[in-house]
Amino acid sequence: MMQDVAAAKADRPIGVFDSGLGGLTVVRELMEAMPAEHIVYLGDSARVPYGTKSPDTIRRFALQDLAFLLRFEPKLVVVACNTASSAALEQLRAACPVEVVDVVRPGAAAALAASGGTIGVIGTEATIAMKAYERAVAELDGGRAVVTKCCPLLVPIVEEGREDDDPIILKVVYDYLADMQRLRLGAMVLGCTHYPLLQGHIAKVMGPSVALISSGAAAAAEVQRRLTSTGMARAAGEGSLRCFTTDSPERFARLGRRFAGRSVGEVKRVGTDELESYKVM
Amino acid sequence: MMQDVAAAKADRPIGVFDSGLGGLTVVRELMEAMPAEHIVYLGDSARVPYGTKSPDTIRRFALQDLAFLLRFEPKLVVVACNTASSAALEQLRAACPVEVVDVVRPGAAAALAASGGTIGVIGTEATIAMKAYERAVAELDGGRAVVTKCCPLLVPIVEEGREDDDPIILKVVYDYLADMQRLRLGAMVLGCTHYPLLQGHIAKVMGPSVALISSGAAAAAEVQRRLTSTGMARAAGEGSLRCFTTDSPERFARLGRRFAGRSVGEVKRVGTDELESYKVM
Repeated sequence: MMQDVAAAKADRPIGVFDSGLGGLTVVRELMEAMPAEHIVYLGDSARVPYGTKSPDTIRRFALQDLAFLLRFEPKLVVVACNTASSAALEQLRAACPVEVVDVVRPGAAAALAASGGTIGVIGTEATIAMKAYERAVAELDGGRAVVTKCCPLLVPIVEEGREDDDPIILKVVYDYLADMQRLRLGAMVLGCTHYPLLQGHIAKVMGPSVALISSGAAAAAEVQRRLTSTGMARAAGEGSLRCFTTDSPERFARLGRRFAGRSVGEVKRVGTDELESYKVM
Repeated sequence: MMQDVAAAKADRPIGVFDSGLGGLTVVRELMEAMPAEHIVYLGDSARVPYGTKSPDTIRRFALQDLAFLLRFEPKLVVVACNTASSAALEQLRAACPVEVVDVVRPGAAAALAASGGTIGVIGTEATIAMKAYERAVAELDGGRAVVTKCCPLLVPIVEEGREDDDPIILKVVYDYLADMQRLRLGAMVLGCTHYPLLQGHIAKVMGPSVALISSGAAAAAEVQRRLTSTGMARAAGEGSLRCFTTDSPERFARLGRRFAGRSVGEVKRVGTDELESYKVM
């Protein structure tokens, strides 16, 4: 009986949301690890970024994003945004009838597993101010030192689409990370879904001895573990990706390719007026 | 009779809106030029920036911002955001029962007046893509050459609040303006309300022979001209400033001081759910 329910659930989609395009780096990891899964993605590009907004506003937007995804009866929801994970996980779990996987806790666990040394965390203004990674690390290993740095220009630098060898990118990355470079970290969490696109630059500044942890990849592994252990993974068949955005679908499809590492297929628009019409808190 | 109506209107406020804090640089100019005026300001900080969004989304947000201001029965409305001026002026004028002053057309006129040479314009991605300044200059002086450049990192650099002598600022400004520096411009329009806060850096790159035009100052002069010519200026008494924001009032008050050059006083919150409830298009 329990197995029948789980099997029936397996065909339901994984719901994923983010403030914009960055969460597509998590989708990319999910699709590589679990190619048979159906995924529904919402990117709130009309109100991006979340990382410079207040916790109250981030929570309200995140709960609206969740309410939209619940229309697709997902079997699990992924908060593919470090800022929303930091500000709203508790409220999202309270409002969601299925499991919610965030990116902060899996990222913290992966950093602890990767090294015995001090852990560095970089993220948006809101993620760093809310100390979400410090709390997640402390829950798992109270003795581990964590140093953090917010890097507000890194998201717009990625979205601007400069060439990889543009000297401004390395100058800005170095400006943010110079202090951390001197700390001989064991691992560094890329605590924003945009940052994997700067992994080469960050590695150049931090050096080869620092393990760089993509919180998106860690979250994808956590999703796979949970679905497999509950018998809800979709074992065979071709998976799919359906994308929704609150701003221009054309722009989302054009820029999304860089984040997803592949075409994102057809993209549909959902209005922020519709999201605001959900009564969430 | 006409004069009585104008006099009765004089005590009504000037409504000003922007995507966030930048429009406070326009408020600053308005308060210096017309200290007796009452001003109501709306900064849509929960959905900032507008400059990376699509024209449709910018128009919808701008019309909602206008609808909110109209509740205060303003005698005139200022679109203190270059992006909204570029995307939505026609729609705003159609929806507004009183005069609408934007920042693009006054900025273009001021640049033409300041120099006989080529005009440079810097702005957000959306402002530059919509060619609003090219069109405004062409309407006033069809023979004048205009060169433009979008500078996506300058808004986040201002909002990040780095010290003026932080070398990253000058490096990024130089990166954007190096090509324009070689063109021997007559004038350059700072086509985003954040840019006056980088005026020193921009002047350093462009040199003393290029007139830097703040579109906000030009808009304030245009407001004064229109109110005076219609007898609707408030001639005496103490003016006032009331601010509303869609995100945290505390953050708005704290950061707003830098843009307004003075305390912005009490700030109240209006929800984006309320703005979205206005049926605008």
